[in-house]
Amino acid sequence: MIKIAVMGHGVVGSGVVEVLLKNGSKIAQKAGQPVEIKKILDIRKFPDSPLAERFTDNFEDIVNDSEIEIVVETIGGLKPAYDFVKRCLLAGKSVVTSNKELVAEKGDELLKIAREKNLNFLFEASVGGGIPILRPLDQCLAANQVYEIAGILNGTTNFVLTKMIRDGVPFEDALELAQKNGYAERDPSADIQGHDVCRKICILASLAFGKHVYPRQVHTEGIQNITLDDVKYASAIGGVIKLIGRASKREDGRLDCIVAPMIIPETSQLADVNDVFNGILVRGDAIGDVVFYGQGAGKLPTASAVVADIIDEAKHISRPKILNWEPGEEGYVADYLQNPVSVMLRFKCSDASAVQSLVEGQLGKCERVVVKNAPQDELALVTPTVEEYKIHQAVGLLAGAKLVSFIRIAEL
Amino acid sequence: MIKIAVMGHGVVGSGVVEVLLKNGSKIAQKAGQPVEIKKILDIRKFPDSPLAERFTDNFEDIVNDSEIEIVVETIGGLKPAYDFVKRCLLAGKSVVTSNKELVAEKGDELLKIAREKNLNFLFEASVGGGIPILRPLDQCLAANQVYEIAGILNGTTNFVLTKMIRDGVPFEDALELAQKNGYAERDPSADIQGHDVCRKICILASLAFGKHVYPRQVHTEGIQNITLDDVKYASAIGGVIKLIGRASKREDGRLDCIVAPMIIPETSQLADVNDVFNGILVRGDAIGDVVFYGQGAGKLPTASAVVADIIDEAKHISRPKILNWEPGEEGYVADYLQNPVSVMLRFKCSDASAVQSLVEGQLGKCERVVVKNAPQDELALVTPTVEEYKIHQAVGLLAGAKLVSFIRIAEL
Repeated sequence: MIKIAVMGHGVVGSGVVEVLLKNGSKIAQKAGQPVEIKKILDIRKFPDSPLAERFTDNFEDIVNDSEIEIVVETIGGLKPAYDFVKRCLLAGKSVVTSNKELVAEKGDELLKIAREKNLNFLFEASVGGGIPILRPLDQCLAANQVYEIAGILNGTTNFVLTKMIRDGVPFEDALELAQKNGYAERDPSADIQGHDVCRKICILASLAFGKHVYPRQVHTEGIQNITLDDVKYASAIGGVIKLIGRASKREDGRLDCIVAPMIIPETSQLADVNDVFNGILVRGDAIGDVVFYGQGAGKLPTASAVVADIIDEAKHISRPKILNWEPGEEGYVADYLQNPVSVMLRFKCSDASAVQSLVEGQLGKCERVVVKNAPQDELALVTPTVEEYKIHQAVGLLAGAKLVSFIRIAEL
Repeated sequence: MIKIAVMGHGVVGSGVVEVLLKNGSKIAQKAGQPVEIKKILDIRKFPDSPLAERFTDNFEDIVNDSEIEIVVETIGGLKPAYDFVKRCLLAGKSVVTSNKELVAEKGDELLKIAREKNLNFLFEASVGGGIPILRPLDQCLAANQVYEIAGILNGTTNFVLTKMIRDGVPFEDALELAQKNGYAERDPSADIQGHDVCRKICILASLAFGKHVYPRQVHTEGIQNITLDDVKYASAIGGVIKLIGRASKREDGRLDCIVAPMIIPETSQLADVNDVFNGILVRGDAIGDVVFYGQGAGKLPTASAVVADIIDEAKHISRPKILNWEPGEEGYVADYLQNPVSVMLRFKCSDASAVQSLVEGQLGKCERVVVKNAPQDELALVTPTVEEYKIHQAVGLLAGAKLVSFIRIAEL
């Protein structure tokens, strides 16, 4: 019998309790021993829960209970989760978390404490919800040099983009629909502005390349400025717009890492990842391209990933199974403006040919993209692949043209 | 330092040696100790190999060497691989294999010996080549009731079908092209007739549902009779033809398990798995649909999966990490003819309406499928979902109509 505590009885936490109660005997078999929930931390009361009497609103009841060997953290955010998780590890308890912000910001520090204390610190549910990705990635890494990871890592924005692409629904309406369906929060900014994807690509990049990448190091753009016109122009070059988190190893040992809406080929495996689904592409020298696809969020998928971690910790309680990476450092992520990229630029201008000439004078030959029924004063160009700062410079030099859209193109 | 032997220096075996030599220091770090290849078993000599002096053609040199703790089997087939692997396990050595025939036929017996001897017996590379699938499936199973697995599990046939679908190349020519490109063997029958897929779905089903499924229990059809006309008719109902291995849990506790070309919706994640790629769909109660995609064969992808297993065994040498299932039994896989299914039937007949009426009289309302420029004497029908034997009965009763195609439709 192993005793655990669950901190936070929200969507994920209550899902974890539900799965543990429902599949108890199977989980006991997998874990080699029964898993008992001794305490649940929440400031709210849940009198109708079958475990109603095990709730507490006092963290000290958990951290000071020497019987509790594993603590599940599903509170989310940094305060108070960071403090609670750190204190649990320091008190000798293994921790499972679904908290991507916590891992993205403090993963290196918490992994170090776990290592020093000979404990497990696992967080499969923090990326890709129920999709097994961190363990398979660790497995891919065993015999491969992984050189790139790219993914559709946020279901809310992917739902919005899918509605725009498939059904021609404008951004605002698609977002409203997502909110109505419970796919977007009332304040959707962390999703829409790309911060959620940023945290996830930080975790993936940290694990894949062995050194912590902090969210503040990653240039992050959201989808709030994507319009149906952008969708149309992307389609004209055989592409679809997806919000992509991407990290790759550079020859100089540093990383390129960025979050932004990108045009990817319609034929890409990631192009077919629609609605609230996530897809993660891993590229390795021996393994080639591998893609993991599934529901990236939701109560039960995420809870099942947390429970898989609990089982793994129960099995490895005295012999921790450690995911690991080193602390990060300034300058480890290269300046995205130095990274070569091809961009679709769209302008409002009175003299398209003149503007195209000016841009080509700076960047070299561009491909002009034409769509049906486009306004006379619209010019769309695909630039050659050049360092991104040069594109911004070229655009900055233009007079008589207003840049209305700037979308990177990615060969994924 | 852990000492291993590699049996079989063919495509996969030589790839394993190559990866172990090339990524030695990284592998040592992951495994917690260096991995040394002490012996390589092959009847051929490889004087140019950097390990030339470690080759032997005598299995006894390996099984009797008490320093060798892990044996890698990449010989393939049952003879002599089965005997060799069994003797290695009985001699107290953990085993890694890429041999799908061995695992599909003898997995239960070999797993039992490994368990009794407190050894590891791992075979990640036997399904999906380099795609991590068995461990993630085991992970999915930890907190999920997996109720269905379906996959495109053979690169050769998928390449042939992709050529037929995308480029309108007839079957024979597509197969020749596959052979030219090294994607098909000179005798491609094990691939084309579905036996390779059968072995892989047996392994997946055994792991997912906990009881051994033997290849002889699984009704298996190949793609040798698929024509460009079939491709066209599939397209007319919004589908594509893929060779699918599929296993699902029945309410009575038994399994449905079959290998056959099936029409799946164009919108399915599996429909976009093209060329030599594989894709495996896992459906669970909590997790929903999860898909794993990548190269299902090839020297380095497969070798990297073998090496990942070697690392895992080296880490768990005294505390085995056991995949497990029980022996199978007669009747565990239900008769496929009793399973409800919808089928696209195509006939040559002089009186299409009369034939349609006769079929509908037996099975209920069918959907007639029409394609451009079809010959006058052609009739294609999609049946309602009924037990498959009823469809064969209905077809058997027809006079004046020749059945030219029978393809099951699957909602994947």
